[in-house]
Amino acid sequence: MKPELHVFKIGGGIIDNEPDLQEFIRLFAEISGPKILVHGGGKGASEMMKHLGIAPQMVNGRRITDAATLELVTMFYAGKTNKHIVVALQSYGVNALGVSGADGNVIQAVKRPVREIDYGFVGDLSEASVNTDLIHQFLTLGLTPVFCPINHDGHGQLLNTNADTIAASVAKALSKQYAVALHFCFEKRGVLTDVNDDASIIASITLADYASLKESGIIADGMLPKLENAFDALQFGVEKVIIEHALHINDQLKTTVCLN
Amino acid sequence: MKPELHVFKIGGGIIDNEPDLQEFIRLFAEISGPKILVHGGGKGASEMMKHLGIAPQMVNGRRITDAATLELVTMFYAGKTNKHIVVALQSYGVNALGVSGADGNVIQAVKRPVREIDYGFVGDLSEASVNTDLIHQFLTLGLTPVFCPINHDGHGQLLNTNADTIAASVAKALSKQYAVALHFCFEKRGVLTDVNDDASIIASITLADYASLKESGIIADGMLPKLENAFDALQFGVEKVIIEHALHINDQLKTTVCLN
Repeated sequence: MKPELHVFKIGGGIIDNEPDLQEFIRLFAEISGPKILVHGGGKGASEMMKHLGIAPQMVNGRRITDAATLELVTMFYAGKTNKHIVVALQSYGVNALGVSGADGNVIQAVKRPVREIDYGFVGDLSEASVNTDLIHQFLTLGLTPVFCPINHDGHGQLLNTNADTIAASVAKALSKQYAVALHFCFEKRGVLTDVNDDASIIASITLADYASLKESGIIADGMLPKLENAFDALQFGVEKVIIEHALHINDQLKTTVCLN
Repeated sequence: MKPELHVFKIGGGIIDNEPDLQEFIRLFAEISGPKILVHGGGKGASEMMKHLGIAPQMVNGRRITDAATLELVTMFYAGKTNKHIVVALQSYGVNALGVSGADGNVIQAVKRPVREIDYGFVGDLSEASVNTDLIHQFLTLGLTPVFCPINHDGHGQLLNTNADTIAASVAKALSKQYAVALHFCFEKRGVLTDVNDDASIIASITLADYASLKESGIIADGMLPKLENAFDALQFGVEKVIIEHALHINDQLKTTVCLN
């Protein structure tokens, strides 16, 4: 039987709220066994860019990563946010190891090809992107890798990658050796039929459920890509995907996504 | 016989000059066997602080690290500079792993006690600060650790530590398992009897030589603490200390410091 591995992803909503972030870290520290944390960016980088007079460029709600933006998000995500999380985990006795994809070549990305939009220094991932051997070695050494959303192309270029994508790619790649539970943490208790009512949580969603919930419009907007990601991960061998509140990861109230 | 290990330290003079930094990285990549790189800060952090309206505080030529400064140097050293070096090393096939002391708890520092001056969030090191087991594991995995000058106290606080001190502490701690050569790289060919003449280089300095060169005033100023550091490292088991030009590490012209 494969050993269990928990891969958690947290995003801007938690990172931007310091008490929430500290509470998440405290709860994450209590998770036993091998675990990995992937964190996104948050608003801090954009705020600092404003201070420095660098205008953030967005197209269709996505950040265009030009050279100045890349330099700043690298500082912010790989420097500030990553070390902030690592040092807090260490204070709870979790031997966290903060990494970008460049560190130990743990993730190698490919710069997104320019089609209609030039996203700039954005890195796309494939299954082969993840250095599963080294991550396995880190886990064996009792380390808890903490990934920031900065990767590299192996030819000297850093690249910015969406943290959901990193979490899913790492989970998929490690599912050959581990029974992986992939946790997408956000500010709701899970997938809700009524977005304003935490009690309307759906405890479990299969691919068939998803099709009908999407059809009926009960699940919409930002939840759609999250669930698409979830099913994609399951199809590539991840055991289960959990969508849950970052401040209630130790609680039973959450949505578990499974193929059937 | 202990395996060889090369510990290199580069400072601001190289980091602030992009072509020099790239050339150093190219040469460092050619060094065979286990190796470690420790980098300092450089002027970039101070420049960014100026842009952001944070006034750098200096006392006796030393930076006072207040909370705002610590946040910024963490971003700069652990984010920008560290990942910049790591990604370049990866492009040369060196499996660099960028770390602060907090990552994997590789270095644990103690906040400098307040006496006449409160240096703020500055971390002092002792021999016990260095997690030699984990660094040894990293080296065994074929990784090249790249240390930035940010450490932690194990209780959730990041601390800024002088890079020379980190390099010397890492070299001393690892000298139990390795025959360590500690390389202090800067912008001169080594210890010179005439600071304006590279040909005046002293090929080898013993503790006795040092005493008389210091006495006669031939060695003065910034070279004194460098050599004090060097002899300290040798007294704690480091095999040799080399003082050399960062752009000529593959060259014979350099100063080797040894006890006798």
